Amino acid sequence: MSKGLTSRSEDYSQWYNELVNKADLAEHSSVRGCMVIKPYGYSIWEKMQAVLDQKFKDTGHSNAYFPLFIPKSFFSKEASHVDGFATECAVVTHYRLKNDGNGNITVDEDAKLEEELIVRPTSETIIWNTYKGWIQSYRDLPLLINQWANVVRWEMRTRLFLRTTEFLWQEGHTAHETADEAIAETKQMLDVYADFAENWMAMPVIKGNKTANERFAGALDTMCIEALMQDGKALQAGTSHFLGQNFAKAFDVKFTSKEGKQEYVWATSWGVSTRLMGALIMAHSDDQGLVLPPKLAPIQVVIVPIYKGDEELANISAEVEKITSALKFKGISFKYDNRDTQRPGFKFAEYELKGVPVRLAFGGRDLENNTIEIARRDTREKQTISRDGIADMIENLLEEIQINIYSKAYSFREENTTKVDSYEEFKKILNENGGFISAHWDGTSETEARIKEETKATIRCIPLNNPQEEGVCIVTGKPSKERVIFALAY
Amino acid sequence: MSKGLTSRSEDYSQWYNELVNKADLAEHSSVRGCMVIKPYGYSIWEKMQAVLDQKFKDTGHSNAYFPLFIPKSFFSKEASHVDGFATECAVVTHYRLKNDGNGNITVDEDAKLEEELIVRPTSETIIWNTYKGWIQSYRDLPLLINQWANVVRWEMRTRLFLRTTEFLWQEGHTAHETADEAIAETKQMLDVYADFAENWMAMPVIKGNKTANERFAGALDTMCIEALMQDGKALQAGTSHFLGQNFAKAFDVKFTSKEGKQEYVWATSWGVSTRLMGALIMAHSDDQGLVLPPKLAPIQVVIVPIYKGDEELANISAEVEKITSALKFKGISFKYDNRDTQRPGFKFAEYELKGVPVRLAFGGRDLENNTIEIARRDTREKQTISRDGIADMIENLLEEIQINIYSKAYSFREENTTKVDSYEEFKKILNENGGFISAHWDGTSETEARIKEETKATIRCIPLNNPQEEGVCIVTGKPSKERVIFALAY
Repeated sequence: MSKGLTSRSEDYSQWYNELVNKADLAEHSSVRGCMVIKPYGYSIWEKMQAVLDQKFKDTGHSNAYFPLFIPKSFFSKEASHVDGFATECAVVTHYRLKNDGNGNITVDEDAKLEEELIVRPTSETIIWNTYKGWIQSYRDLPLLINQWANVVRWEMRTRLFLRTTEFLWQEGHTAHETADEAIAETKQMLDVYADFAENWMAMPVIKGNKTANERFAGALDTMCIEALMQDGKALQAGTSHFLGQNFAKAFDVKFTSKEGKQEYVWATSWGVSTRLMGALIMAHSDDQGLVLPPKLAPIQVVIVPIYKGDEELANISAEVEKITSALKFKGISFKYDNRDTQRPGFKFAEYELKGVPVRLAFGGRDLENNTIEIARRDTREKQTISRDGIADMIENLLEEIQINIYSKAYSFREENTTKVDSYEEFKKILNENGGFISAHWDGTSETEARIKEETKATIRCIPLNNPQEEGVCIVTGKPSKERVIFALAY
Repeated sequence: MSKGLTSRSEDYSQWYNELVNKADLAEHSSVRGCMVIKPYGYSIWEKMQAVLDQKFKDTGHSNAYFPLFIPKSFFSKEASHVDGFATECAVVTHYRLKNDGNGNITVDEDAKLEEELIVRPTSETIIWNTYKGWIQSYRDLPLLINQWANVVRWEMRTRLFLRTTEFLWQEGHTAHETADEAIAETKQMLDVYADFAENWMAMPVIKGNKTANERFAGALDTMCIEALMQDGKALQAGTSHFLGQNFAKAFDVKFTSKEGKQEYVWATSWGVSTRLMGALIMAHSDDQGLVLPPKLAPIQVVIVPIYKGDEELANISAEVEKITSALKFKGISFKYDNRDTQRPGFKFAEYELKGVPVRLAFGGRDLENNTIEIARRDTREKQTISRDGIADMIENLLEEIQINIYSKAYSFREENTTKVDSYEEFKKILNENGGFISAHWDGTSETEARIKEETKATIRCIPLNNPQEEGVCIVTGKPSKERVIFALAY
């Protein structure tokens, strides 16, 4: 608390790392690439989970749990799937340790598994192997299941929340009678994610389709939501995949249709992860610390007494009790920080760092004047106001903050979305400003790969309801019918 | 549904396996020893989690998340801990697969880990290694953290929920200034578990201490709650451990006390797991299926229409809507099953199997008479009653069922708890009746081990507030001051 954060303009990446640590969100563990999610960070994740979980249930899904381990052979059953994940797998080969007699603990070679187990990087294979037993008839469909779980993808370069070897996520896996139904589900869940990102995280997103190069390994189509971070880099915040019949065929999952025919089932999968924590942090926070949207803030209002002596504190506490009762009644979460081990200035800095949306400071003079000082985290404005109707005022302010945070992020994105019509301009914007770049592309994987190699920019998505316009590819000059969104990305 | 369950008296173990499968609670996966928790089973587990999580928060704990993997060397730092867990570990040795060129996927030997990683069987070591960075001063204490996670203990003989290689659980890990505080925490969390078992699961438990032989590997004291299943076997339903300074010393976690001294921290850990699902099933269920306590039933009331033709169904549905509105208002969960693909009899059997506490059947005659048939799952009694005030009546009935299920289990336990004063009688009761056996024991590990070897019975616990009485050990005849509880156990 004594030292401030590195500023974003000075070193954005350093700012992020310091913020994650100092705001008690997460830290690196002693296990390479794995993070510890600290209590304050986890309490934000719990709020995210609760909202998403309710949305999944409202759209007819149930939770279930499938094994952490996947037999190596399952993995190979869907060819593109194994290609996509084999190079980043944690492999369990033994099931016992032993004491070597010299006091050292070693792997017991007598306990070698006949078939290695993969720690799940995603669960399509184990789940479709299970669905085979659950689906016989059209009456068993649709099957709408979600799982909250940890997954492991071995990463060489990791960053807290954004890219870690182990992360927490949810993965939906659904089975349908027809391709149309599965496609509708894919879109529905993308809408759920977009709604969550925009209306809870206060983070505007572009919904779109991935190009073939960027598709999930095993999908026919990958839809995504893409958000823009304050450093001008894009972050993929959620994906929803139409898997066609690939996994049904790989695991032989057929159903008897209403017409009595045997048909393969149609599938989707969709997921968001603790990566959303990284997005939330980077979308809104400033050089003083976290800025949390009120709807996801574990503490929405903090109250700090400023007093001399026990008697004044008692008088202030009695008045604070009236405020907190009113907040409680409205379902607004709060913390009354009357610790005597820290000064008010220290507490102010701490709650700024932790992104608490509204701070009340209650001093001796406020007792006499029926006033209180109220400060909002997003704009850092403060004013002294009457305590009459304070809970209503806070309720409205929380809504205003939620909207303001969104608007600010929206304006930022608009200001940092650039239409370009030449490769030169593309590279110039990418280097000097970053942001989303809207440009024509000839639709080939080759050109996409060339752009990525030469500039590191990728096609983030082909937006939904994309305006159709005649144009030429910025690289090859070949004809194009629509612009796509490029960016450097996390 | 067509075939009933094997009865408990016929084959208890078979009854359990069939029930878990047929009531859609869980099934064996293709991964040896790992289970799939099916949506209906998982929804019960979610209710358990929600209640326990709130209790943990009400007692001041926060959730956090620690890595799945533990470096092998951490494991060895606490000697008795590694002895307890080393023989049942999943070991990750590699981090990549590769295609061998012949289309086979094999482990890439170039991607061998320098130090093997253990899939956590419990998290004391990784957590205490983390706490070292979090604890400097008495101001950082107590540290009260819980984690919801999956853990892996390699099991050779597995049973759904009761003993699986992977299971879900929560593990609390707390750090304190003094031994007294840590002991108080250990007891508090045992009380939380006992309260949950008795007042939510409707399952009476005996609170007590484990003997040295049965202690958690690394604990100074293990407290437990023990429940009695319908086949006369005991089930350990939760444990709370006083760890002393063992892990603080192993990981060098010291704090500066109020007096300015450097001292090792005192620790506890405590956990319950998906094993509780097995306990819930075996404590109450009957030959028709599950019997769920209303407080943990995902569906508390099911309503089945019995009708001829669409018009009658429409009229019934309109009246049912009035009932369900009233239930909703009271926060009672319900399902109106108007599927036309199944007959009422089929539905009745299905909801009996799934343990729904209250079933309403609404027929054509009920329309005219302002009546409805109500059936309770616990006693299987049914009666036709007036629909006036039906929601109040159901609310009371759910409470009554909750109490009745508990009472029944309590009576069963009392009837199956036997005081014995000779080894001969001990063996006779154990073989002919089972249940809890209260007997004098000389307090030595040797005698305890002998009894276990000769009879398979273990000391379940030394009950709290155990009456002190003079007696002699049933095996050695040596003096004893109190009886302890023996049983065969899951």
